[in-house]
Amino acid sequence: MRTIGVSEIEDIALGAALLGAGGGGDPYVGKLVALGAVRECGPVTLLDPEEVPDDALVVPIAMMGAPTILGEKGIGGEEYQRLFDMVSRFFGKKIFAFLPIEAGGVNSMLPIAACARLGLPLVDADGMGRAFPELQMVTFTIGGISASPMALTDEKGNSVIFETITNKWTEELARAVTMSCGGSVSVSLYPLTGAQMKAYAVRNIVTRSERLGAAIRTVKDCEGRTPEEHFLEFSEGYRLFKGKIVDVLRETNGAFNFGKAVLEGVGEYKGRAAFVRFQNENLAAVVDGEIVATTPDLICLVDAETFKPVTTDALKYGKRVLMVGYRCFDLWRTPAGLELVGPGYFGIETDYIPLEERCKGGKGHV
Amino acid sequence: MRTIGVSEIEDIALGAALLGAGGGGDPYVGKLVALGAVRECGPVTLLDPEEVPDDALVVPIAMMGAPTILGEKGIGGEEYQRLFDMVSRFFGKKIFAFLPIEAGGVNSMLPIAACARLGLPLVDADGMGRAFPELQMVTFTIGGISASPMALTDEKGNSVIFETITNKWTEELARAVTMSCGGSVSVSLYPLTGAQMKAYAVRNIVTRSERLGAAIRTVKDCEGRTPEEHFLEFSEGYRLFKGKIVDVLRETNGAFNFGKAVLEGVGEYKGRAAFVRFQNENLAAVVDGEIVATTPDLICLVDAETFKPVTTDALKYGKRVLMVGYRCFDLWRTPAGLELVGPGYFGIETDYIPLEERCKGGKGHV
Repeated sequence: MRTIGVSEIEDIALGAALLGAGGGGDPYVGKLVALGAVRECGPVTLLDPEEVPDDALVVPIAMMGAPTILGEKGIGGEEYQRLFDMVSRFFGKKIFAFLPIEAGGVNSMLPIAACARLGLPLVDADGMGRAFPELQMVTFTIGGISASPMALTDEKGNSVIFETITNKWTEELARAVTMSCGGSVSVSLYPLTGAQMKAYAVRNIVTRSERLGAAIRTVKDCEGRTPEEHFLEFSEGYRLFKGKIVDVLRETNGAFNFGKAVLEGVGEYKGRAAFVRFQNENLAAVVDGEIVATTPDLICLVDAETFKPVTTDALKYGKRVLMVGYRCFDLWRTPAGLELVGPGYFGIETDYIPLEERCKGGKGHV
Repeated sequence: MRTIGVSEIEDIALGAALLGAGGGGDPYVGKLVALGAVRECGPVTLLDPEEVPDDALVVPIAMMGAPTILGEKGIGGEEYQRLFDMVSRFFGKKIFAFLPIEAGGVNSMLPIAACARLGLPLVDADGMGRAFPELQMVTFTIGGISASPMALTDEKGNSVIFETITNKWTEELARAVTMSCGGSVSVSLYPLTGAQMKAYAVRNIVTRSERLGAAIRTVKDCEGRTPEEHFLEFSEGYRLFKGKIVDVLRETNGAFNFGKAVLEGVGEYKGRAAFVRFQNENLAAVVDGEIVATTPDLICLVDAETFKPVTTDALKYGKRVLMVGYRCFDLWRTPAGLELVGPGYFGIETDYIPLEERCKGGKGHV
């Protein structure tokens, strides 16, 4: 048990945006919401998963819809209270703590705001250890846990609870209501017992985000190593490529941004070429025609100088980026995990090979 | 307290379709659902409103969406159990009885099916005493009662509960989910206490429907009067016109069928002309250029020979119809009632004048 205040939020937002693997929205927007709540209501207690009783009700909180609309509409303080009341009433039992559903700039922050406003603790765990584009893509699905009852509320005060036969229907109906409510709403989904959370959640994700944020913030302070070496070592990243963005192809299809960023090597990668395919998040990295990393491992582009994460929304011609890989959470590497989020699900024609194996032989390194 | 079985259902369906005032769907479809449930599970107990305790939870049940789709998709026996469970859970209290929200061929019948399947009593009351096209157009709105919590479920097993800031938002969000679920769903809305029901509901509507149905069924058996006289006297209807449909103009706009049926007089009306404007339900009747009836009074077209109601969906060139007016429920004639469903709301440029005053001077008669 420890406390999250203003300075922790700065680092968590930065690190969680890195773990967003290109998706998860703008950390600046999310950070403003969390900072506002903590300044107004005080810091938040962060619980280790082991500190949660097995029979406690713990509930992931997130936003659904477009983060850019969230920035315009804002989130009222009452939305989280309504979600709390709806879910507590549904189960006839008060929610013990919130947790994030995913890393990423926005959804890492909203649960902190919710906990601050309601005086609830936050669990140091989430359902992805990164960000993914679809609602069923959480470790809880591997545990057979349903997304519903899912609660949804908007900034005007409308509330909806869904109980659906599959998580695909949860997505379908909640998406329809989200659009009718103006394109961005607050939700809670995958309500869990403490025991379920301990069995399937990605542990220590808030703490890991914070450490990654600190690593990015302190790269200039290292001694005897280059900032890049410091960043890679501290973040346990695999260097995949370094280059200049020379083309970004985008196609928006429904709720998703599909696309490809093409890189031209710089520095020691001069004369070489790479590209990254994405669907909201980065899904596959190819260097000189060879796949060097795929989902569910994390493929992250960071600014080559500051090491700040660059989301797929923010990819721009001419920007110099370092392409870094991170090992995904172990459960994603099981057959059940790969069925949900492996390369095959996204139409990438390759078997999944763990990042660290693909990077053997000097192509990448920690 | 009395019992509703197969023979009562036949008459109720016919009479309720008449009270649908042109809307409310095909009584044949609704009747099949109610008959199926009663044959399988036994008859339904009908309660007088006074037999319901003041603190009991009573809930109107209906379908939302297109009745024609209902005919294709059908309604499973489990939908009403789910609505019962959702609403009972929400209030922490079991539903005491169901009631219809409106008259009309379909929504008069589904609550009978629901009560048969769940072994619950049906209250002899509804929220309109006729049919109206929009969700807020119920007497309960005059009592300041909210449509939400509204529960919705589909034949596949998906369920949703809405709590909204206005009844307009209930309509908006429930409509979006209805479309996503395939265009037809079962709902419960305007949950009431027994006391609220007694204060605002239209009483004895099931019994009235049954009597009207019996009047239609028995018109041939009358002695010393024409069947038309018998029908008008028994149903307490005002004869407005008799004619042949010579034109039907229709415009579908969102969930509504707007239109106009033009009639050419026959029999004692020969040489005269009339038309009826409708939005799902008939809203205004004009004879020889003069308004003879408007909403909220009921304007009904019935077959000139059989006196069976003709819904706006079934208007066809060449059909001979009798146009009959019925007095609406008293609450609709108050300022609050007329604001909700008076001619002004529907863009009909006239003050509301009660049917019986418009018909003074021989133009109509009981």
